[in-house]
Amino acid sequence: MASSISPLAPKTVAELPAIEGVRLATAEAGIRYKGRTDVLMALFEKGTTAAGVFTRSKCPSAPVEWCREQLAGGKARTLVVNSGNANAFTGKNGRESTRLTASIAAKAIGCRPAEVFLASTGVIGEPLDANKFNGVLDNLAAAASPDAWPEAARAIMTTDTFPKLATATARLGTTTVTINGIAKGAGMIAPDMATMLAFVFTDAPICASALQALLDRGVTDTFNAVTIDGDTSTSDTLLAFATGAAAARGAPTITLGSDRRLREFRTAFTDVLANLAEQVARDGEGARKLVEVLVEGAVSKRSARKIALSIANSPLVKTAIAGEDANWGRVVMAVGKAGEPADRDRLSIWFGDNRLAHEGARDPAYSEERTSAYMKRDRVAIRADLGIGRGKATVWTCDLTKEYVAINGDYRS
Amino acid sequence: MASSISPLAPKTVAELPAIEGVRLATAEAGIRYKGRTDVLMALFEKGTTAAGVFTRSKCPSAPVEWCREQLAGGKARTLVVNSGNANAFTGKNGRESTRLTASIAAKAIGCRPAEVFLASTGVIGEPLDANKFNGVLDNLAAAASPDAWPEAARAIMTTDTFPKLATATARLGTTTVTINGIAKGAGMIAPDMATMLAFVFTDAPICASALQALLDRGVTDTFNAVTIDGDTSTSDTLLAFATGAAAARGAPTITLGSDRRLREFRTAFTDVLANLAEQVARDGEGARKLVEVLVEGAVSKRSARKIALSIANSPLVKTAIAGEDANWGRVVMAVGKAGEPADRDRLSIWFGDNRLAHEGARDPAYSEERTSAYMKRDRVAIRADLGIGRGKATVWTCDLTKEYVAINGDYRS
Repeated sequence: MASSISPLAPKTVAELPAIEGVRLATAEAGIRYKGRTDVLMALFEKGTTAAGVFTRSKCPSAPVEWCREQLAGGKARTLVVNSGNANAFTGKNGRESTRLTASIAAKAIGCRPAEVFLASTGVIGEPLDANKFNGVLDNLAAAASPDAWPEAARAIMTTDTFPKLATATARLGTTTVTINGIAKGAGMIAPDMATMLAFVFTDAPICASALQALLDRGVTDTFNAVTIDGDTSTSDTLLAFATGAAAARGAPTITLGSDRRLREFRTAFTDVLANLAEQVARDGEGARKLVEVLVEGAVSKRSARKIALSIANSPLVKTAIAGEDANWGRVVMAVGKAGEPADRDRLSIWFGDNRLAHEGARDPAYSEERTSAYMKRDRVAIRADLGIGRGKATVWTCDLTKEYVAINGDYRS
Repeated sequence: MASSISPLAPKTVAELPAIEGVRLATAEAGIRYKGRTDVLMALFEKGTTAAGVFTRSKCPSAPVEWCREQLAGGKARTLVVNSGNANAFTGKNGRESTRLTASIAAKAIGCRPAEVFLASTGVIGEPLDANKFNGVLDNLAAAASPDAWPEAARAIMTTDTFPKLATATARLGTTTVTINGIAKGAGMIAPDMATMLAFVFTDAPICASALQALLDRGVTDTFNAVTIDGDTSTSDTLLAFATGAAAARGAPTITLGSDRRLREFRTAFTDVLANLAEQVARDGEGARKLVEVLVEGAVSKRSARKIALSIANSPLVKTAIAGEDANWGRVVMAVGKAGEPADRDRLSIWFGDNRLAHEGARDPAYSEERTSAYMKRDRVAIRADLGIGRGKATVWTCDLTKEYVAINGDYRS
């Protein structure tokens, strides 16, 4: 694990309240690390619904495949997460390992294996010995408490330099409900600690299909708008669980994602996702600067998004930002390579409020001194206006530093 | 410019013979650099044909647009290349600059501006003062010699650490013809010295459309199979010129790219392209290792190529190679993220002859020691067999080192 905390870490860690119907416990199962927790078990009251979105990798991990299958049922009684081993590219053995883990968990709390959700993060290609969970999960089920959020966020870390937590409340009908989230990220990680994992919990009574709709819509401008290095993990997992406990306090049960009563909840839910996603970007490997890329004036939102990702993933743009250089020529390059409609002679580019290029050429009014001062900040905004439409999208990334190369290349030497 | 030569530079520099109908000259025009040549002028005898392929960037440089327009005529009398300024993203001024440069060149040698080809490499967004070519091109036209190949290759360098030259001969009918090529590369380059430029010259009598067909087919497995960082320059240009002088020695005039008499010529022509492309990869910024990525068993060649590029452009794969780590988990990740058909449980991965993964899991027989020794080489081959088809493709790249970040990020500090 990385030893020093990212300079972009939030100054304070969010304090998460209890969520009715959720209890948490962590343990040291010795999966890979010594002297730290590496298993999280979350227990849910009966009636809890589940939804999820996963990596688009064509080579997903065994737990991703397991979760996808169980989502058909839409019911959850427990979530088991381990760090240290991703159970990815482990073939038949990997599938058996998820099955065994689910059956140990189901036995520990008295539910069906289909109500058990799993996530693993860590090395790829190493068999995960599910027997390590034997006994451990029984102890966790017995020890679980409603307050163990900081411990939960820590147990799922790999090369993260800080735990990631977020919380929000919203009114559903006239009842206040709570949304808590934890995440781990840090891009793709040494020694091949892939994976972004995030888990969101609420006491709102929302049926599985409505929760799925909230999640599908919520990720577009949050988790799907964050990129560290353009690489895609085999294990990226975002799961949401709704215990429905707030129904007893008068919250209406929501069965449709389009229900207008969800308006306030949707905003709070998306805020939690956005908050966690930004923390992931702030903890990109070796990151020294948080970068916001806004593309506007594209032919469509989809097109704007593709161009924004092209800028955010460009090694040349990212190294320039690491070097505190307002290298707008590289932004032009990245717009050009995206393959989306663009008219060079209408393109304008800003770093912060400094317009460097206007309608296809260098802005004669731009101040080198002011822009250089701006580039020294730890949060840098790049804006590109294509001037040919109304499509708009924002993505977040971080700079590409020598530390990234060191973290990902040097650990064996 | 980088000061030390890439450790991957070829041990010897190719010696290029004269090509009938081609003369070359270089000069110091003071466009950006001091104390080095920065302009190349190549002069062609009447009857010379031209063909070209260019960047796919939607924001191409002014010279790229100029060349695309002139190719319609298919005739060339001169090529003018400058380093130090890319004349990219320079708007109307850029277009005027190419027009003025072409008219100065046309006047210097007595041809039409449409027979003048241009290429520029260097900073983006700086106006290029074409008046700097005034007088200079007259002198070059007067001084041109058939032997100035080494000087030509040097004049077009930016952060290249060595000049790139290649040559081959082939029989066309019963006549021996010659193919010479020069290139500059080094990926994308500080201070934003974008651009791969390559120029190929032959005395074979080949009409413009046949030459274009040869080029289109030739680039697929050569220049289009080389990637340094996945970034695309605004200025990438590959031009071919055929003087036809060998016709006087009995070479048949070729009017169709499909002419069977081109068989031997096509091989030699593609060899020159491949040789130059490999030199570009060997001079990738900060490169310490040349990496060959072979993907086979994909559903099609196109699919294999997309997966190979996904592996070759992955920062995580490239940093692992820089760290001499046979991190096959990251190759799985890169296969998965390519979005192409793949079956995790049929995938096998080799580093050199060392099979690390077989049919979806770690190969139990693999030797950590042997593989580690292999990874210390300066040329590393990655092979991925998808096991689901017959599609096959190879691409070349280099590792991602701290020097890459330094070259691209540190130059202002």
